[in-house]
Amino acid sequence: MMLKIVLDNWHTTLKRTNDLVDGLSDEQLMQEIAPRRNRGIYLLGHLTAVHDAMLPLLGLGEAHYPALLAPYVKEADNKQDYQETPAQLRQYWKEVNNSLNSKMAALTPGDWLDRHTSVSPEDFAKEPHRNRLNVLVSRMLHLDNHRGQLVLLKGKDE
Amino acid sequence: MMLKIVLDNWHTTLKRTNDLVDGLSDEQLMQEIAPRRNRGIYLLGHLTAVHDAMLPLLGLGEAHYPALLAPYVKEADNKQDYQETPAQLRQYWKEVNNSLNSKMAALTPGDWLDRHTSVSPEDFAKEPHRNRLNVLVSRMLHLDNHRGQLVLLKGKDE
Repeated sequence: MMLKIVLDNWHTTLKRTNDLVDGLSDEQLMQEIAPRRNRGIYLLGHLTAVHDAMLPLLGLGEAHYPALLAPYVKEADNKQDYQETPAQLRQYWKEVNNSLNSKMAALTPGDWLDRHTSVSPEDFAKEPHRNRLNVLVSRMLHLDNHRGQLVLLKGKDE
Repeated sequence: MMLKIVLDNWHTTLKRTNDLVDGLSDEQLMQEIAPRRNRGIYLLGHLTAVHDAMLPLLGLGEAHYPALLAPYVKEADNKQDYQETPAQLRQYWKEVNNSLNSKMAALTPGDWLDRHTSVSPEDFAKEPHRNRLNVLVSRMLHLDNHRGQLVLLKGKDE
């Protein structure tokens, strides 16, 4: 039941984000959420790269688009055109989450309480909370944190 | 262990928000997070009112400041001075969370999976996910969503 509650909230947060992003035009995504702050396009690339990296972190396979990590996570918003178009990022975002969700659906409660791949067996023995479920909860918070910023693009002049 | 992970993340999210709010001046709190959007002061009142309402919702006692619900939850940001000063809202925020955390610490895993007070025993029998833990997870997401907005006040001209 506790696992179901976390997973239900993950899916709800993801659906709210998808509904929000689907309702924003490409022109709105190219705008800053506030003066001199990140643009929507950067946040969409950022969330896609972070969710993509969950695949190897949860031991569920390779990342699909590891090249997104540099421009959208390690570096700040370049404030220019990215190599990826808004349409491509929208597609990558959906694809990465679909892959993640279908692979997560096969995990058992025991799998969720097992270690994630960036903690060693020795460290995990001492810190058993460093498990897959903890990754999911922190990424869910990360997602809603940025959703609170993306919502500021709604109703912006295109 | 699953409960510990959710509670640890709750405390981390709360600490990050407290560190952020403590680092903002009263003048920064009076500014809008983005043009024509909510001011920091409204969001602080909003979060305080919502966390205060968790006390009765979780069956942990009466709300301390139920009068905050109208101006900070039901109504939009009035864009003028509020009855509460920033200093008062900062104090209420800490007080409400301290009360909530000390009462939550006494709850057992069974208590967390029991129903919250806005669902009837009959409905809870059909929808057992409508429990205290679900309230905590959704309020934790709500908190980080608005934390992502409050962070936009950092570095603003005072």
